[in-house]
Amino acid sequence: MFVKNYRQVPPEPAEEAPGVTVRWVISEKDGAPNFAMRVFEVEPGAASPFHTHPWEHEAFILAGSGFVRDEDSKTPFGEGDVVFVAPQEKHQFVNDGDEVLRFICVVPL
Amino acid sequence: MFVKNYRQVPPEPAEEAPGVTVRWVISEKDGAPNFAMRVFEVEPGAASPFHTHPWEHEAFILAGSGFVRDEDSKTPFGEGDVVFVAPQEKHQFVNDGDEVLRFICVVPL
Repeated sequence: MFVKNYRQVPPEPAEEAPGVTVRWVISEKDGAPNFAMRVFEVEPGAASPFHTHPWEHEAFILAGSGFVRDEDSKTPFGEGDVVFVAPQEKHQFVNDGDEVLRFICVVPL
Repeated sequence: MFVKNYRQVPPEPAEEAPGVTVRWVISEKDGAPNFAMRVFEVEPGAASPFHTHPWEHEAFILAGSGFVRDEDSKTPFGEGDVVFVAPQEKHQFVNDGDEVLRFICVVPL
């Protein structure tokens, strides 16, 4: 068991996503057996890659606003929204607001 | 893919925990294949059961304050803290503050 603040974890640049950082706040390094928790920050105008992969995302928007898009649509989100992306769904998280977009994103290990 | 606000999900009373509600915001009903996301609210003075089980918790404190205890110790937490409870670790989340304690808790399916 441990408690730590997400702000204590150094942010790392996210791959292929300028203006995006990730903190791995709970991961296999901590002994997590099944899934990892990350905290992302996306600068205004920045976005995660528009990509697909065989695992799901379970996200929770902590602050800021933006939208998630797939091949066909864009769905806006803000504080308190949860976002589920199924395995193999193409997706991108975009910050189209004026403030930093901060969200939790959980992925399987 | 879907987006919904956690407030749209009706809170249910948590088992064996007066003053505690749970919202299953992403679960197997939504097609989640590996893990579920829940949002808990704990009234001031209330607590989750002091118990153990074979699965882990990955939690993120959204608002309020309190502590998590095991057999030997109590560790305080507040907004922005992450809490990891390993499988089989005895644990209890306690709200010893004056405001509602709200946290995300992810568990395997």
